[in-house]
Amino acid sequence: MTRPVADGSCAQDSLGPVAGDSAMAAGETVTTTDRRIMAAAVRFSRWHVGLTGSNPSVATLIVKDEGHGPVIIGRGLTAPGGRPHAEAQALRQAGARAHGATAYVTLEPCAHHGRTPPCANALVEAGVVRVVSAATDPDERVSGRGYAILRAAGLAVASGVMAKESEASLAGYMMQRTRHRAHVTLKLAVSADGRIGRRGHGQVAISGPVSRAQAHLMRAESDAVLIGIATALEDDPQLTCRLPGLERRSPVRIVLDTHLRLPLSSSLVASARTVPLMLATTVPPDDARRLALEEAGVGFIAAAPLAGHMALPELLEDLAARGIYSVLVEGGATLARAFLDDGLVDRIALFTAARRIDATGSDCVDAPFTRQSVPAGFVPVRQMHFGADLFEEFERG
Amino acid sequence: MTRPVADGSCAQDSLGPVAGDSAMAAGETVTTTDRRIMAAAVRFSRWHVGLTGSNPSVATLIVKDEGHGPVIIGRGLTAPGGRPHAEAQALRQAGARAHGATAYVTLEPCAHHGRTPPCANALVEAGVVRVVSAATDPDERVSGRGYAILRAAGLAVASGVMAKESEASLAGYMMQRTRHRAHVTLKLAVSADGRIGRRGHGQVAISGPVSRAQAHLMRAESDAVLIGIATALEDDPQLTCRLPGLERRSPVRIVLDTHLRLPLSSSLVASARTVPLMLATTVPPDDARRLALEEAGVGFIAAAPLAGHMALPELLEDLAARGIYSVLVEGGATLARAFLDDGLVDRIALFTAARRIDATGSDCVDAPFTRQSVPAGFVPVRQMHFGADLFEEFERG
Repeated sequence: MTRPVADGSCAQDSLGPVAGDSAMAAGETVTTTDRRIMAAAVRFSRWHVGLTGSNPSVATLIVKDEGHGPVIIGRGLTAPGGRPHAEAQALRQAGARAHGATAYVTLEPCAHHGRTPPCANALVEAGVVRVVSAATDPDERVSGRGYAILRAAGLAVASGVMAKESEASLAGYMMQRTRHRAHVTLKLAVSADGRIGRRGHGQVAISGPVSRAQAHLMRAESDAVLIGIATALEDDPQLTCRLPGLERRSPVRIVLDTHLRLPLSSSLVASARTVPLMLATTVPPDDARRLALEEAGVGFIAAAPLAGHMALPELLEDLAARGIYSVLVEGGATLARAFLDDGLVDRIALFTAARRIDATGSDCVDAPFTRQSVPAGFVPVRQMHFGADLFEEFERG
Repeated sequence: MTRPVADGSCAQDSLGPVAGDSAMAAGETVTTTDRRIMAAAVRFSRWHVGLTGSNPSVATLIVKDEGHGPVIIGRGLTAPGGRPHAEAQALRQAGARAHGATAYVTLEPCAHHGRTPPCANALVEAGVVRVVSAATDPDERVSGRGYAILRAAGLAVASGVMAKESEASLAGYMMQRTRHRAHVTLKLAVSADGRIGRRGHGQVAISGPVSRAQAHLMRAESDAVLIGIATALEDDPQLTCRLPGLERRSPVRIVLDTHLRLPLSSSLVASARTVPLMLATTVPPDDARRLALEEAGVGFIAAAPLAGHMALPELLEDLAARGIYSVLVEGGATLARAFLDDGLVDRIALFTAARRIDATGSDCVDAPFTRQSVPAGFVPVRQMHFGADLFEEFERG
């Protein structure tokens, strides 16, 4: 398969170095075309986010100008489950044409040896002459060494091209490698009057259908979705991804349930054989309730007790250690505050709905914050309209 | 609960420094009693091997001489699932009596901060005055820092006491932290005439009942048991731990099944809802056979293809990344050779049976090696008689 990168006139633009790219050494000229192709690679890398386990979702595009402007002659994406890597697949698709081509990679190619050749060496052996890379791998066995292999073999390397954009797809991997814990996105849907629900009313529709579809997509892109037991009891949610065609991309569902209060009759337990359900708890394995839940297909995460609750940093560390690198925290208000108080929220996905809840007094559940009171230290990175709702994304500044 | 450590006369022996302990600084006097208590701690630490996930199975004994010789006043073991840690539990049991006591720990106490206090600080705060430790933690966030916290607070620290013995319980954790892959024990049962089975005869009983019970215990102590597809097809095994009382300790079962040949009707698939079964494969997720297996409760590990098979180092790295730190490889001969050829076997558990198979020609399956031809580089560490069978354990020299 070959696809033109852009129309001919643009594709052959060469505007010289672009300001703002990091780690650019002399001679590593980056063109507008490079950035355009990398933007395509970054968008492509997002396809498998949430599917690649302990390997990062990386995209590779092999691009060559064979006389009619640059054309993609091979593309690859980390396969579901994490193997094979993107570069190997892109090179296989390009075949002999890779000789003399440029490879665009959203993450520094791997350098450590297993039995399959490291991707850096595979690029060299295929005859690629130039590599344009976005993010640098923080893994101690790779960091900078992938580039070194390429440069030692005489390839031109431009690194740091659209690094920030690329890192959005790599957030979980980066967090595990640098801070040994899972990356946390806090999702919050707030009504126009600053509520997130009504007590005793179960799930209340706050945001519109477009927002809800986007929220389901966020589940598909996460390794796990996580709620507190209070929300589980109040809403009896499924926490699955129910977008047509993406039903099989539901992530592991985690409920923080210190004392194992989740009923066997809940929707979550009822579906535990179809979509994994794990309860983080301090209840020991020989407890009768726990055994009954286990019998129903529920898994468990041993939590460190902390003043009647559980220690969240330890939990995120243990999740990362079992390959769960990205967690979408969906509720409720108390849990959101606990993650914020512990400094464990890395990204905020805030849906502000057009509709109001108009509950009063003890009937309403106030949002832990609204768009007017986003916690200090978070900066807006994206804003979109989903139907009548406003979506805003914030990251740690 | 308190238990005397040994009879009075022995417990009060103090023979001064014991030769052969590593990392012993001036003043870190280690007595015979210390070594005896540590031996008890090491045996205790083995109880939860295979149960603690990404946290190591560590034992702590808090010991105090309140006038009648040293007595254990608190004991703790990393809880199933990995939390809470051993030290916290032992200190809770000891209560106020921990003041002035000695703590025996099979691994350097943790030093990094989550929300629960690091174990090193917990020992300080409880008023423990001396810590005797076996293995040093290779985790970059702990290594040497646990001891430093203790020493800075004025505690006496003797480290490296029975370190080698302790590391047997910690093998998986150590391998993950130092080499980022799962630890591999190769289990092999060889008949007196050097066979491991007969073609077309399914499972052939080679070793006796005591050996088989020991082999089941090895399963209980592993995070995963692993076989090749040929063995799965030939033997139709269950690979569970069927020792009375330990049935719930069956580890994850992994079959290397590059092309997904395992039948839906196999014993392994039939029990996938009870004991986790994972197939390592290069078959993509949308394959119909794979979907049918998934429907039956089977999980998958994406393997890197390598000349029609799969890359084993990459597989062991991916297993470690999802918290599977110790793997018991049970067969067959081809798979054993593949792990040996790749230098991936860390320990050999060799059962040499009293009985012969007496098959001839193409009917018999020769052992990949026997006790007369143990692969180079392995040294014997343990030898026992199990009924009429001989059991030998070898480690990399």
